Amino acid sequence: MTVVLPGGVNRSDLKLSDGRTISYYDSLEVNRSATDKRNDESQPGIGHLRLDPLVNEWVAVASHRQHRVFLPPKELCPLCASSGDKLTEIPDKDYEVVVFGNRSPALTTPGVSWKLPQVTGIDTPNADAAGACEVVCYTSDHNSSFAKLPVKQIRTVLEAWKDRDAALSKLPFIEYVFPFENRGEEVGVTLSHPHGQIYAYSFVPPRVEKMLQAADSHLKKTGRVLLDDVIKREIKDEKRIICENQEWIAYVPYAARYPFEIHIAPKRSVARMSDLDEGQSENFASVAKEVLTRLDGVFGIEMAYIAAWYQAPVNLGSDSMRLHWQIVSVRRQPGKLKYLSGSESAMGAFIMDLEPEQSAQQLRAVKL
Amino acid sequence: MTVVLPGGVNRSDLKLSDGRTISYYDSLEVNRSATDKRNDESQPGIGHLRLDPLVNEWVAVASHRQHRVFLPPKELCPLCASSGDKLTEIPDKDYEVVVFGNRSPALTTPGVSWKLPQVTGIDTPNADAAGACEVVCYTSDHNSSFAKLPVKQIRTVLEAWKDRDAALSKLPFIEYVFPFENRGEEVGVTLSHPHGQIYAYSFVPPRVEKMLQAADSHLKKTGRVLLDDVIKREIKDEKRIICENQEWIAYVPYAARYPFEIHIAPKRSVARMSDLDEGQSENFASVAKEVLTRLDGVFGIEMAYIAAWYQAPVNLGSDSMRLHWQIVSVRRQPGKLKYLSGSESAMGAFIMDLEPEQSAQQLRAVKL
Repeated sequence: MTVVLPGGVNRSDLKLSDGRTISYYDSLEVNRSATDKRNDESQPGIGHLRLDPLVNEWVAVASHRQHRVFLPPKELCPLCASSGDKLTEIPDKDYEVVVFGNRSPALTTPGVSWKLPQVTGIDTPNADAAGACEVVCYTSDHNSSFAKLPVKQIRTVLEAWKDRDAALSKLPFIEYVFPFENRGEEVGVTLSHPHGQIYAYSFVPPRVEKMLQAADSHLKKTGRVLLDDVIKREIKDEKRIICENQEWIAYVPYAARYPFEIHIAPKRSVARMSDLDEGQSENFASVAKEVLTRLDGVFGIEMAYIAAWYQAPVNLGSDSMRLHWQIVSVRRQPGKLKYLSGSESAMGAFIMDLEPEQSAQQLRAVKL
Repeated sequence: MTVVLPGGVNRSDLKLSDGRTISYYDSLEVNRSATDKRNDESQPGIGHLRLDPLVNEWVAVASHRQHRVFLPPKELCPLCASSGDKLTEIPDKDYEVVVFGNRSPALTTPGVSWKLPQVTGIDTPNADAAGACEVVCYTSDHNSSFAKLPVKQIRTVLEAWKDRDAALSKLPFIEYVFPFENRGEEVGVTLSHPHGQIYAYSFVPPRVEKMLQAADSHLKKTGRVLLDDVIKREIKDEKRIICENQEWIAYVPYAARYPFEIHIAPKRSVARMSDLDEGQSENFASVAKEVLTRLDGVFGIEMAYIAAWYQAPVNLGSDSMRLHWQIVSVRRQPGKLKYLSGSESAMGAFIMDLEPEQSAQQLRAVKL
């Protein structure tokens, strides 16, 4: 079955041998029908959620994940296309962008009667770890990266994100959809093939909950959307802006928490990924590519980063929360990382050794 | 000037050449009078605080810290005692436990009229980064560790913590006192000499604020102290307890967030470090030593960890928040670390690959 998405992107859905769905996203019309020739492996069980009563936060316990594949050599990469005897997660012999369920998901589809327990303190019963964990392969080229993708391919990735956001949001047990990328061994990447992930949570994650509180409170107090006011301030201050086009703006935020931290937002703000219209979708790629290219250019090395999409939860905050992309890098200098140690990880209090204006200047100074 | 503290610990205060105070804590009566022979270096300037409006959190910007000493060889260690021409932070030729102000503090004493700005959204003015950052050297033996300290020496460290907690709490600009230790290069330690730090914040750190909300809400709902109920549950469940004595208990919490996470609390709960009485103080060392020895024993290697003291803020929560020590290790297996990647750092949603009961079992199985 092929579905045509905005931007002329074609989606073809197939099944892997263990029952997981794989979706090919193609900018060209391609017949996707290759079958998965691997033996049917049984799916791992579901983990569970436990409430930490000291902070009222859910923790997902997924002990079946301990033995997942860890930095395999290129010839065993499960995210490359299949070829001859080498059977990977992607049955076809090539692809543009694919999305499929994680083989060892921390969060997965629960039974039909699943409900998140009410938070009631110490005796909250644990619950199945409902949710979804998907893999988004950005390109079949093992040695590429998001920054190196052609503009057209970035559009295809964006359409895949939008499409999955819309689909996952419709599941009754999903409260928040989170597309992200961990890049670099420094942030724990176990597969070096260019790819991101989508986690769909059955609860509003703690950091989003806090953003929602701030956004709701600002809306109530001022009648305005918080991120709109933040962007107005960044435009007024000017000195932390990295680049922009008619639809998107990229800046180092005034109170950056990481040595290199860039926020990228649509100028006409929207609540959710799947709300992006044609003009916004078409103009995303050039800003995304420039930002990530500048980031790799600062020290002339591939920067480790976490790229995280924030948006309104599925059932809350569509009037106050706004979609934006936060890219943070833990690299301070070529040989030095910023570690989340006592103050950051135990207290949540960030200490920044680099002024945001200084890192913005370094990013702008990169020759493209 | 020498002050006698509980446990027969003697404190002697002296000045370093740049004006910082150094306090020697000794279990024996020792005359501490060695003068700092280094040239008077000017103190670095004060950093500033910026409010992140997206989550209403303060970030400390301390750009003067970029060039601090980074993993010097043992013969240049600034935390060893001075000897001959080798002049360190500690002027005397030996010591038991010392505390002094950090040479490149992220937080420091502000002007007398300093006030934290009211949180008012986007236009909150930035403020001087008021607070204190102190170094606590656990022993003059460069190759030792907290776990290897004699029980008597751990008591001396505890008295130093209690003494500094009491003193820092009296400063008008301090809202929270946080004694902690980062251990191991994996968590960003820049000096390998056995030492911890004390950060005293001029605001309630985000994670403490969240704990306070949970504790206050539990108290209001049940009339009981949250940590008391948590410990009751751990005693009932039994299977996550690591060790205990008449005054202290150590357990892997029900909803642990890290592969190895241990909480250590006094059974008769107290709000603050400086509230610990003689019985509690005298019995802390044996449990602390056992827990850290077991942690190093799990894989037979020195474990990297963050050891963080949580307690009631200076001006809030003394009826609901309770003192306890959280030790978390990012090591999953001998060659594998747990990284705080997308889900943990961007969402605040922790995924645990190891069941808390399993890590408790591994910790208990270590032969002492």
